[in-house]
Amino acid sequence: MSQYLVRNPRTGENDYTFTVPTAEQIGTTCQHLRQAQAHWRQAGATARIAALQQWKAAVQRHHEALVAALTADTGRKTESILEANLLISSIERWCGIAEGFFSQPIEKPASVPFIHIRQDVQPYQLVGVISPWNFPLLLSIIDAIPALLAGCSVIVKPSEVTPRFIEPLLKTIHEVPALAGVFTYIAGAGDTGAQLLQEVDLVCFTGSVATGKKVYTTAAERFIPAFLELGGKDPALVFEGADLDQATSSLLWGSSVNAGHSCLSIERIYVQESIFEPFVNSLVQKAKALRFAWPSVDDGQIGPIISERQVAIIDEHLRDALAQGATLHTGKGYCEPIGGGYWCFPTVLTKVHHGMKIMTEETFGPIMPVMSFRDEAEAIRLANGTIFGLSAAVFASTWQEALRIGQRIEAGAISINDSALTAIIHEGEKNAFKASGLGGTRMGPGAIRRFMRQQAYLIKQEAVRSPWWF
Amino acid sequence: MSQYLVRNPRTGENDYTFTVPTAEQIGTTCQHLRQAQAHWRQAGATARIAALQQWKAAVQRHHEALVAALTADTGRKTESILEANLLISSIERWCGIAEGFFSQPIEKPASVPFIHIRQDVQPYQLVGVISPWNFPLLLSIIDAIPALLAGCSVIVKPSEVTPRFIEPLLKTIHEVPALAGVFTYIAGAGDTGAQLLQEVDLVCFTGSVATGKKVYTTAAERFIPAFLELGGKDPALVFEGADLDQATSSLLWGSSVNAGHSCLSIERIYVQESIFEPFVNSLVQKAKALRFAWPSVDDGQIGPIISERQVAIIDEHLRDALAQGATLHTGKGYCEPIGGGYWCFPTVLTKVHHGMKIMTEETFGPIMPVMSFRDEAEAIRLANGTIFGLSAAVFASTWQEALRIGQRIEAGAISINDSALTAIIHEGEKNAFKASGLGGTRMGPGAIRRFMRQQAYLIKQEAVRSPWWF
Repeated sequence: MSQYLVRNPRTGENDYTFTVPTAEQIGTTCQHLRQAQAHWRQAGATARIAALQQWKAAVQRHHEALVAALTADTGRKTESILEANLLISSIERWCGIAEGFFSQPIEKPASVPFIHIRQDVQPYQLVGVISPWNFPLLLSIIDAIPALLAGCSVIVKPSEVTPRFIEPLLKTIHEVPALAGVFTYIAGAGDTGAQLLQEVDLVCFTGSVATGKKVYTTAAERFIPAFLELGGKDPALVFEGADLDQATSSLLWGSSVNAGHSCLSIERIYVQESIFEPFVNSLVQKAKALRFAWPSVDDGQIGPIISERQVAIIDEHLRDALAQGATLHTGKGYCEPIGGGYWCFPTVLTKVHHGMKIMTEETFGPIMPVMSFRDEAEAIRLANGTIFGLSAAVFASTWQEALRIGQRIEAGAISINDSALTAIIHEGEKNAFKASGLGGTRMGPGAIRRFMRQQAYLIKQEAVRSPWWF
Repeated sequence: MSQYLVRNPRTGENDYTFTVPTAEQIGTTCQHLRQAQAHWRQAGATARIAALQQWKAAVQRHHEALVAALTADTGRKTESILEANLLISSIERWCGIAEGFFSQPIEKPASVPFIHIRQDVQPYQLVGVISPWNFPLLLSIIDAIPALLAGCSVIVKPSEVTPRFIEPLLKTIHEVPALAGVFTYIAGAGDTGAQLLQEVDLVCFTGSVATGKKVYTTAAERFIPAFLELGGKDPALVFEGADLDQATSSLLWGSSVNAGHSCLSIERIYVQESIFEPFVNSLVQKAKALRFAWPSVDDGQIGPIISERQVAIIDEHLRDALAQGATLHTGKGYCEPIGGGYWCFPTVLTKVHHGMKIMTEETFGPIMPVMSFRDEAEAIRLANGTIFGLSAAVFASTWQEALRIGQRIEAGAISINDSALTAIIHEGEKNAFKASGLGGTRMGPGAIRRFMRQQAYLIKQEAVRSPWWF
C-alpha cells in the first residue's frame, strides 16, 4: 500500500497524504457499485431525486468542512466557497431538470398499422469520472450528478493535486444511505485513473488535451463511450462602440479569476485598432488594483498557482512571449515564489502575435495578451485561428451586433457583451468544438440523456399479420 | 490506377470492375465537399429539405435502374425493390422529422438575471459513411440523409462487394444541383475506407464488430466522433400461450429474409419446454415451403449468399454445431454451390447449446437454432448471455406480458409479439447495447441532432454588471 504525498499550494510543503488504492481494491469497489446500481435504477427517478435532495442537506451540514478542505487543496478561499455553493445549487438545478426529463410522454403509434412504439431508457451501469485540480469539487460533480439521476452508479477520481476535499465529501455521501452504495470517490494519480478506465462502462474526463486523447484511445480499445471536456484558449473580441469599462472589468475577471485556472478563462484578447490604447490603459489600471490572497487567505483576489507543474508552463509561455518582443504592462513576467508557493500576478501583454505560445497554447494562468485587429474579418480569423473551440466572448456596441459576430466563432459557448458566463450559467446546452472536447452536452437535459441508452419497444397489440411469407 | 474486380453472387463470375480512387483523389473530393458545405449549411433547413425532395423525385425517375443494379449486386430482387422503395419513403420521413426539428424554439431566459440564452446548432462539416453489403443502398443512406439534413457534407463508401448501385445512385444525385456538391459516393475496399477515415470530421460505420472496433480506435486517434452500428445475435423468446402460428411465421421471416444477411435478423430462438415440439414442427413445416430464388431471380424467396467470405463463416458455424450433436431439420447443413453462387437453405436446428458458435457468434445466414427453456428466469439469462445487444423479440400470451418480459432484455429494440420489426419501422429512437454499437440513435430526431454540435449564446442584453471585482 503506497502513500501519496500532497503538496500545499500556499506553503509548498507536503502536508497531506493518502493511500493509493490497489487495482484489486478498485475492482472490488466497482463490483459493489455495479451490484447496487440495479436497485438504484429500479427505484425510479423520484426516489433518486429524493436521495439527491437528502444529499444536498448533508452538503449544507458539512459546508464549512468542505470549504476548509477545498481551501487547503487550492490555497484560495472565495472560489472554494463558490464551489461548495455551486454544488448545492447544482443539485437543485439537476433535480428540476430530471423531473422534467422523466415526465415526458413515451408512447406513440408507429407509421405501420397496429404497431405502437414505447420509448424507454436504460442507464449505463457504472460511470467513471476523472476530474482535474482547478475546480476540484465542481468539476468532479458536474458529470456525476446527471449520471446519478440517470440511474447509473458513479465512481469519481479527482486529481491527486487536490484530494483533501474527498474526505468531507464522502461524509456527506455516507449520510444518505440510498446514495452511499452507488456513489463514491477514490483518491489517486494517473495510474489509478488508468485502472479505473479498465473497470467502467463509460468515462467522463475533464483535463488536458494530451491526457484526454489518451483517455479516448483507451475508451475505444475497451469499446466504451468517452465524454471529454478538455482545454481551451478562449478568445475575446472587443469592437469599437463596446462599453470599454464593462469590457475591461469583465475580461479581467474572466481571465484572472481562480488565478486563470479555468478551461473557460479568457486567454486571448483582440481589440479593434481605434480603441486599442484606451482599452489597454483601462485593463492595466484595473489589473494593478488586484492583490494576491497573501499573507492571509482572506486577502486580495488572486490565489496561488495550484499545481506546481503549471508554474513551468506559465513561465515558459511568458518567457517565450517576452523573448519575442512582447511588452509587459503588469506582473513580473514569471510566477513569483512567495512563502513556498508560486503566485502569478494578472499580466497584461501587448505586442503579441500568433507565433507565440501565449497566443496558441493553453496557459491556464491570469495572462491577458492583447492584440489589435482592423476589421471583423480579421477578428474572426484570429479568434478561429486555434486548435481549440471551447468558448469565446464578443463585445460590441449592441448585443445584436455582438451576437451576429459571435455566430461566426467556432466554439460551444459564446458570451455576448460579457465574458466567461458559462462559469455562472449552467443551463445552455453546448458541445466543445475541435480539440476542446467530444461527446454530449454536460448542461441541460441532454446531459442526463447521454448517460442512457434509448430503447424502442415495437409492440404489436393485435393479432394481425406483418408482411411475412406465410 | 488499380481496378477492382467484383464477383456476381449468382454466377460467381467477376463481371464488374471499378477504379480504386487514389488517396489524392479522395483528398480532393473531400476538399470540394468541405468547400460546398458552407453554402449548404447557410441555405437553411427549408432549402435542404427542398433539395432532398428533388432527390426523391430523381430516385423515382431512376427506380428501375437502381433496382437492376442492386439486384446484380446482391442476387436477390424482392429486397432490392424494398431498398429502393425505402429510400424514397426514408427521404419523406426524414424531411418531416427535420421540419419539426428545426422549428423548435431556441430562446430562453437564464437563471441569472439580465442574461438570455439562445441555443443554436452547428453541423459537422464533413461526415464519412462506411456501409456494408447486406442492404447496400439502405444502409448507405440511413446515416447520410439525417447528416445532410443537419447541414453536413457527406461522402459514402459502400462495400466493395456490392458497388454496382453507386453509378445509378450518383445519377440521381447529380440531377439535383443543390445536392451534387455536398453528397457523393466513392467505390473502394478497406484501404479506401481507411483513407476516408483520415479525411472526415465524423464517421458512421455499419459492419462487423472487428472492423467497427478498428474504426473506433482510428477515430479516437484522430479525435473525431464515431457512430458504430455493428453485429447482432438477436434472440427470440417464445412463451407458453403465444400464438404459435404467428410466432413461427414471423420468426421464419425474421431469420431468413435477405438470406439472413441482416444485423437485426433473429439468430437464436428460445422456446418454453411445454410448447417446444409443436413450435419446432410448425417452424420446420413452414421452412420447407421456402424456395431459392433460382434459376430465375423472380423465383422463390431466398437469394444467394451475397459475400463469398460469409459462406465460410456460415459453413463453419453449421459444421461446429453438427459436430457437437445438433439435429438438422431442414437444409443441407452447408451453403450449396449452385450455378456458381452459394445458397443456404433456411435451416432449423435443435439440440443446440451455448458452447456452439451458432448460438454465440454472428452467423448472418438463414439459420434458426432452437433451444428450450424452463422458465422466465432461464429465458432472460439465455437471451442476455451474449456479447451483443442490438435487438430481440418476445412472444407471449398477451402483448403486456411480452412487454414486461422484454423489458429485462439488454438490447436497443425489442419487438413484442412479432420479430425484426425494426426492419420495417424506422421511427423508434434506440441505441445498440454492448458490442453491437456505440453513439447516438440513428432513428428519430436524435439521429439528426448527433450530426450537430450545440452552441449556447449567453447574451447580456442590458448594461448591468456581472459579479466582477470592479
